[in-house]
Amino acid sequence: MDLNGFKTELAVRDYECDLQGIVNNSVYMNYLEHARHEFLKSSGIDFAALAARKINLVVVRIEADYKSSLVPGDQFTVSVQYERISPLRFCFHQEIRRTSDNRLIIQAKVIGSALNANGRPELPKELEDIFGR
Amino acid sequence: MDLNGFKTELAVRDYECDLQGIVNNSVYMNYLEHARHEFLKSSGIDFAALAARKINLVVVRIEADYKSSLVPGDQFTVSVQYERISPLRFCFHQEIRRTSDNRLIIQAKVIGSALNANGRPELPKELEDIFGR
Amino acid sequence: MDLNGFKTELAVRDYECDLQGIVNNSVYMNYLEHARHEFLKSSGIDFAALAARKINLVVVRIEADYKSSLVPGDQFTVSVQYERISPLRFCFHQEIRRTSDNRLIIQAKVIGSALNANGRPELPKELEDIFGR
Amino acid sequence: MDLNGFKTELAVRDYECDLQGIVNNSVYMNYLEHARHEFLKSSGIDFAALAARKINLVVVRIEADYKSSLVPGDQFTVSVQYERISPLRFCFHQEIRRTSDNRLIIQAKVIGSALNANGRPELPKELEDIFGR
Repeated sequence: MDLNGFKTELAVRDYECDLQGIVNNSVYMNYLEHARHEFLKSSGIDFAALAARKINLVVVRIEADYKSSLVPGDQFTVSVQYERISPLRFCFHQEIRRTSDNRLIIQAKVIGSALNANGRPELPKELEDIFGR
Repeated sequence: MDLNGFKTELAVRDYECDLQGIVNNSVYMNYLEHARHEFLKSSGIDFAALAARKINLVVVRIEADYKSSLVPGDQFTVSVQYERISPLRFCFHQEIRRTSDNRLIIQAKVIGSALNANGRPELPKELEDIFGR
Repeated sequence: MDLNGFKTELAVRDYECDLQGIVNNSVYMNYLEHARHEFLKSSGIDFAALAARKINLVVVRIEADYKSSLVPGDQFTVSVQYERISPLRFCFHQEIRRTSDNRLIIQAKVIGSALNANGRPELPKELEDIFGR
Repeated sequence: MDLNGFKTELAVRDYECDLQGIVNNSVYMNYLEHARHEFLKSSGIDFAALAARKINLVVVRIEADYKSSLVPGDQFTVSVQYERISPLRFCFHQEIRRTSDNRLIIQAKVIGSALNANGRPELPKELEDIFGR
């Protein structure tokens, strides 16, 4: 699989580290989400604007392998590659790699869907356009 | 599998909800971690005390199925059931259920390990004692 | 001033601690907010329900003195005492005290207001009723 | 006062917004802290490295005026200007301004100190050097 798609570069903030002195496991979910939203924005889709129209992009399943830990001072890249996996679901293949040595930090599959204003699964046209039908 | 092991009851705090008005996907990882630590504490194992001895319990893999969303005002139960899966790894089977109607919110498998002061995988004796050998 | 008004009891969660092993300074703002919302709810005012009507309760000013730090395992009480200070503003006097020895952890004054659907300051009737005119 | 000292530019991440659709009040404390740590790092002082030596930089008091809210998509600048205010205390004057129109979002005074390995107030030499005696 080609993971050389969308990438965003970030740096660890000290408050994101827990008492072990490493980035807390939940914070990687923030990083992954932020990169997905940046990817969507680069494709013309605004998560917040959709939410304002009562169209909610939601996470359905996450599989994440934690390979190594980020620590204060680390810079890292979060990559995003999407795949349409069913009429109502899409999958993001994501990796976080430390910038200094390209070390793999986390590898994740995040499956998402969209809910319409009635809370029923329905992909809005904008998503159909970028994810393919 | 019997999930009627350790349980802790919590309530959604408004700041845990994102702009969609539902608990953000990363926050469930906080809930799951907190319940695991409460479970460990009830078994005599203190995550923070271990960290002070440079023994770090770490997450190796997470699989989580998001079934429904928690919203402001919801109370919920987080359950924890552990399983020893290899000499160096243990698995927590966890569920979050809304208290009012027992609705399943998230179902997760969290695989963990422990790193010694040199950063090498090694389970401390306390963990061996509760997880079995 | 009588601070023996509304109180809620909480416990530190390990993920709320930063790399210094103490609760991060920003997390106390979460604790203080959560206690204010619990207080409001006990008075019949639901922050999330107001937001759904486009009425936003907002923080205008915070003054907080950090006296001591909470650490993993600590239980604590957050108190809330309100005061109407002007036609459009109210003030919450809040304290966080460690349960085991009543030690003062933080003392804060949080001044708030409300914005109507047009983003203009306006207190909704429910707030007028509890804060007095 | 000259606030044209250290500055760092950031952007709102969607997960930092709460159910009102604006950045939650506690998150500004994260932004302010991150900018202070970046400032310190630019002066040769590493918060995490100090903590590893059991020297903890701590917040003693925060005064913050919330002037306007950041929303998804906003870029902003956090400024830091320090002042030595007593033998054991220093003050950071900070502002957050929206990049697009320079609008003031928050104005804060954050008073800090340092605790040595025994938990007693004591400024390490590095801090004396940059804050002046």
